[in-house]
Amino acid sequence: MSPRVSAAVARQTRASIVARAVATASVTGLEGLTIGRLATDLGISKSGLLGHFGTKEALQLAVLDAAGEIFWREVWEPVAATPAGLPRFRAVALSWLSYLERDVFPGGCLFVTAAIEFDDRPGPVRDAVLGYATRWQRELLWQLHRATDAGQLSPDTDPEQVVFELTGLVLTTHQALRLRRDPQAPRRARQALERLLAQAASC
Amino acid sequence: MSPRVSAAVARQTRASIVARAVATASVTGLEGLTIGRLATDLGISKSGLLGHFGTKEALQLAVLDAAGEIFWREVWEPVAATPAGLPRFRAVALSWLSYLERDVFPGGCLFVTAAIEFDDRPGPVRDAVLGYATRWQRELLWQLHRATDAGQLSPDTDPEQVVFELTGLVLTTHQALRLRRDPQAPRRARQALERLLAQAASC
Repeated sequence: MSPRVSAAVARQTRASIVARAVATASVTGLEGLTIGRLATDLGISKSGLLGHFGTKEALQLAVLDAAGEIFWREVWEPVAATPAGLPRFRAVALSWLSYLERDVFPGGCLFVTAAIEFDDRPGPVRDAVLGYATRWQRELLWQLHRATDAGQLSPDTDPEQVVFELTGLVLTTHQALRLRRDPQAPRRARQALERLLAQAASC
Repeated sequence: MSPRVSAAVARQTRASIVARAVATASVTGLEGLTIGRLATDLGISKSGLLGHFGTKEALQLAVLDAAGEIFWREVWEPVAATPAGLPRFRAVALSWLSYLERDVFPGGCLFVTAAIEFDDRPGPVRDAVLGYATRWQRELLWQLHRATDAGQLSPDTDPEQVVFELTGLVLTTHQALRLRRDPQAPRRARQALERLLAQAASC
């Protein structure tokens, strides 16, 4: 193989390892990923797999990265053309709920799982999870600031409070869908979201 | 040792294994519990520890049981004398938030962690987690039904919606406290709770 072809093959192998690891980690958690099991699932050698990542931690970080891209593509991009401010905030919130409902990851949102797994484990994976959560929160806050500036929400609105409560609606929907298998959860969350926004428009 | 003394010693050993396992599992998750590590931490042999539980699953179920008792004692009992209905519902909700704030378990609420870990793993542990969640939800619903019967909340109140949203406030508080180390979270949750109850009183 020419060096160029072999680099392309390596990239492809790496991408298929990560794709499989993302799906597995959404079910078992990032800590539940094992190099051995993953290698068996993919029909490659353990040392071959380690050659791509070096450590389990490097694999976990690559999984978060890939999951972040999927999240962005599935939640943000479909509504990116919505007018900024309140319309986009509402559209993103609904898209976030729809992403849970559509089972984009086989075991539920990887970031919800990773936040629980790593909240008490200092290190690069925790830092990465917190980084994703913070950037996402910032996007949401930004739309709410645009909404108050444009008079779409009351100037008394506390954007951090709204994002805090929206996150709660997403987390309770995730738990209701996955633990209770309650199909009513997204409807309940949308109802609460509309009340939250109506209150922010009028307070 | 007489059989009676030896049974008492066995009970005591079992209790200290479970206590240690509860603290560990709140940080590492129930799947992160390992018989070997726990035995080392407690200075007993692996086979001695297995003698008390037989399997890791039996240990996990014992941990949930002990965590359930702690939860009940820390969240429910302090407010059990509050008048039934809305006063007790509010008191329980505040007690639930305070339990998160007080770090009753070193790694956060064990049930929040277990719900994420086992939502996609069918079996006795998932059944137990779902059982605890369902019984807790039933207690909360019962207080809300009492509240609507007593005219403390509007007859149009949907108790399941209120419990769904309260659960969201608890989950977002848990994430904000543990992942973001945000000390404002309980205050934000209390503010949202009051608005939720005011809305249920007037709808």
